Amino acid sequence: MGLLPSIYAFAAQDEPVDNAMTIESATRLTPKYDAQGLLTVVITHAETGALLMVAHMNAAALAATQKTGKAHFWSRSRRKLWMKGEESGHILSVQDIRIDCDQDALWLKCLPAGPTCHTGAQSCFYRRVEGDRLIADDSA
Amino acid sequence: MGLLPSIYAFAAQDEPVDNAMTIESATRLTPKYDAQGLLTVVITHAETGALLMVAHMNAAALAATQKTGKAHFWSRSRRKLWMKGEESGHILSVQDIRIDCDQDALWLKCLPAGPTCHTGAQSCFYRRVEGDRLIADDSA
Repeated sequence: MGLLPSIYAFAAQDEPVDNAMTIESATRLTPKYDAQGLLTVVITHAETGALLMVAHMNAAALAATQKTGKAHFWSRSRRKLWMKGEESGHILSVQDIRIDCDQDALWLKCLPAGPTCHTGAQSCFYRRVEGDRLIADDSA
Repeated sequence: MGLLPSIYAFAAQDEPVDNAMTIESATRLTPKYDAQGLLTVVITHAETGALLMVAHMNAAALAATQKTGKAHFWSRSRRKLWMKGEESGHILSVQDIRIDCDQDALWLKCLPAGPTCHTGAQSCFYRRVEGDRLIADDSA
């Protein structure tokens, strides 16, 4: 075990996490990564509450986020760790991190330094769905 | 093509969706399902804006949601389509559906008929993450 750098190794030692109830009531972080080693991450604006984006984190991205206070993600398309805003400057300053009942999704409340979407929109969710049509609507 | 019931077959005929820019500016719904045929779905409270839960939809769940106005999901653990609240009565009445830039995530603004989390909590995100500790906090 001494070679395992992850805090999760210690979590596994400290308390059993082999059933749903334990995971739901746990007071220790034991993320349930998917087969690709990822968690789903929801980003909302810490002041307005608007949903800004959905992304993914692996253990390294979560650790970097917690260490720096700036949101880091795993890019599934580029297969690399990235800090949001590393090129655009539109970083996300993390104000609060929450986790859901089964510990496979995170909620980050952030203060964005600029538009969150790479298209330039404040939020990635700039279209409403009506039937099979998409309607532009930036009132998140 | 006549045997394909999906609206997405027609979308593919009507407009090319073979590059990111088209998907981002499209006015027609062309969901980008993952390898398991799923979209990530974020549920917020239509009035308070609180993040209630994160789940997944396949094409059938999306169609059922649009048809009924009640949120349906695909359960990855039980491998079945389910209507949220079908057992508990805590249905989610869908007020608004949005989709993100690359069309692989949905945002549903809903009015919940009861606690959204199966644990009885109003939101599945009832714990804050601080380091490797989880702190109970139901102030979503």
